[in-house]
Amino acid sequence: MFALIVSLRIKPEKRERFLQAAEENSTASVRDERGCLRFDVVEDQAEPTHFFYYEVYRDESAFDAHKQTPHYARWRQAATECVVEGGQQNTRCTVLFPRDYS
Amino acid sequence: MFALIVSLRIKPEKRERFLQAAEENSTASVRDERGCLRFDVVEDQAEPTHFFYYEVYRDESAFDAHKQTPHYARWRQAATECVVEGGQQNTRCTVLFPRDYS
Repeated sequence: MFALIVSLRIKPEKRERFLQAAEENSTASVRDERGCLRFDVVEDQAEPTHFFYYEVYRDESAFDAHKQTPHYARWRQAATECVVEGGQQNTRCTVLFPRDYS
Repeated sequence: MFALIVSLRIKPEKRERFLQAAEENSTASVRDERGCLRFDVVEDQAEPTHFFYYEVYRDESAFDAHKQTPHYARWRQAATECVVEGGQQNTRCTVLFPRDYS
């Protein structure tokens, strides 16, 4: 099981645009992709322009498929508008526990 | 919904001890705590001594209750043995999406 932790720092004036795009991307990923098991969007309580995506895919090929979807393309467009320069950091991970992911 | 992202850097020689403790803590938290909805343990693919906990609780009081459990006490003991000095970073978050968490 493959997990991606994405740290995102956004422009304060783009908050509503970002939230709309993040909700659409996360909802569509879990709903439409068989290989996407989880896509949570969380906000850092200490920094109101700092967010994380926590994404879980069945394997890395499911993540590759994610990047071919129309909702991902729409998210990337929003990201270019909302995320500050250098403000996205992706950490590729392997899920260890739970062993039987659901 | 409250989420905690924990970044953990461990001593390489303590890997097995850490994994045993992390599995026990994560498994018991989801199994025994009504307020703990998720507790994933993931490993950074780029850094084999770097791990994350991704924890979701119904609210902050459920997280406070988590810290009163015997499995949390056992985890803290293991953490003192396994985590390098200054190697734990907690980020307190609010879950935005999915709106209806499950």
